[in-house]
Amino acid sequence: MSYHELTIRTQSRTELIDITSQLARLVQQSKVLSALLFLFVPHTTAAVTINENADPSVQHDILSELNRLIPLAGPYQHAEGNAAAHVKSTLVGPSQTLFIDEGRLALGTWQGVFFCEFDGPRSRKVWVKIIPTPNHP
Amino acid sequence: MSYHELTIRTQSRTELIDITSQLARLVQQSKVLSALLFLFVPHTTAAVTINENADPSVQHDILSELNRLIPLAGPYQHAEGNAAAHVKSTLVGPSQTLFIDEGRLALGTWQGVFFCEFDGPRSRKVWVKIIPTPNHP
Amino acid sequence: MSYHELTIRTQSRTELIDITSQLARLVQQSKVLSALLFLFVPHTTAAVTINENADPSVQHDILSELNRLIPLAGPYQHAEGNAAAHVKSTLVGPSQTLFIDEGRLALGTWQGVFFCEFDGPRSRKVWVKIIPTPNHP
Repeated sequence: MSYHELTIRTQSRTELIDITSQLARLVQQSKVLSALLFLFVPHTTAAVTINENADPSVQHDILSELNRLIPLAGPYQHAEGNAAAHVKSTLVGPSQTLFIDEGRLALGTWQGVFFCEFDGPRSRKVWVKIIPTPNHP
Repeated sequence: MSYHELTIRTQSRTELIDITSQLARLVQQSKVLSALLFLFVPHTTAAVTINENADPSVQHDILSELNRLIPLAGPYQHAEGNAAAHVKSTLVGPSQTLFIDEGRLALGTWQGVFFCEFDGPRSRKVWVKIIPTPNHP
Repeated sequence: MSYHELTIRTQSRTELIDITSQLARLVQQSKVLSALLFLFVPHTTAAVTINENADPSVQHDILSELNRLIPLAGPYQHAEGNAAAHVKSTLVGPSQTLFIDEGRLALGTWQGVFFCEFDGPRSRKVWVKIIPTPNHP
């Protein structure tokens, strides 16, 4: 397989799970110095985002605002009861691209990477691909 | 031109169009084994997303929730009557990155790639770039 | 450093700032012909989007709809008063990927690239990485 696969066990219906340290470990193992790291979530009721991982209330507010904007129950046609999760997945998005610099994941001071569960609890996957790039910009 | 250009004819004001098989054909023709596929929509009232392509009601619910959240008519300044389409374009986004593995588009079981028309019907373009990557992750 | 860093001085609480010409200059200086340009915003209350830069009312409508959907004041737990900005950052997203073709940024006729300030005024950064790619698609 030409990419890494992380397995994530979610515990709630909607949940943000910090995967920054798992990604940092992959970066370290890859021994790249300058690179790009591509994330892809192969699910239609989940997503990946980057946001503050210092104060957990930020994660709470992101989930509660998404739940308020796109309520669990609504005039949905999709009969499986998870239409809201599909909509949230499209709004937040299944892919992100991160920079690797000097052998480390390059993030802002307050940034962490979060797997977004919108229809849990489930066992989920995140795909990761690291591509070395030139040392100049 | 250093990228492929797909042409899409949309039929409705708002519509999701499954472009997965067109992308799969480009992947096959490119004969790459491991690669990244970059999508870019060169329009400001459209977007690209990845979501379920098994039950069409999911596509219906995504569009109807977006239309409910960002109504066609509102207190908009933009005088062309398509301000809502511009807002939806920014929320869903014009670019996505997909993985190619063992010569095939790597998607989750239920995932398909959709062009999102928010101000149709129109003739639209989707740009596609495929970059070979190492066989290891 | 293996990427460029733009510095942006924002003037308002919420604001879109057109950075297209700064990116075009980086592309020109890089002397690449075919390439990908990766954007990353290292902040948790900001984002990057691509939308119309001809009529400024589009930028106004994007901001006012986001402010209507995710109000500044709400039942947020995060105590710093900028919870709404964190939610908007996740909805619009911190990364985008653009194509470079024949030595120029490849954008649709009406497209520009905008830094999205959701908790200004502040001094902000945008990271940019340009990766040469084959001349064929």
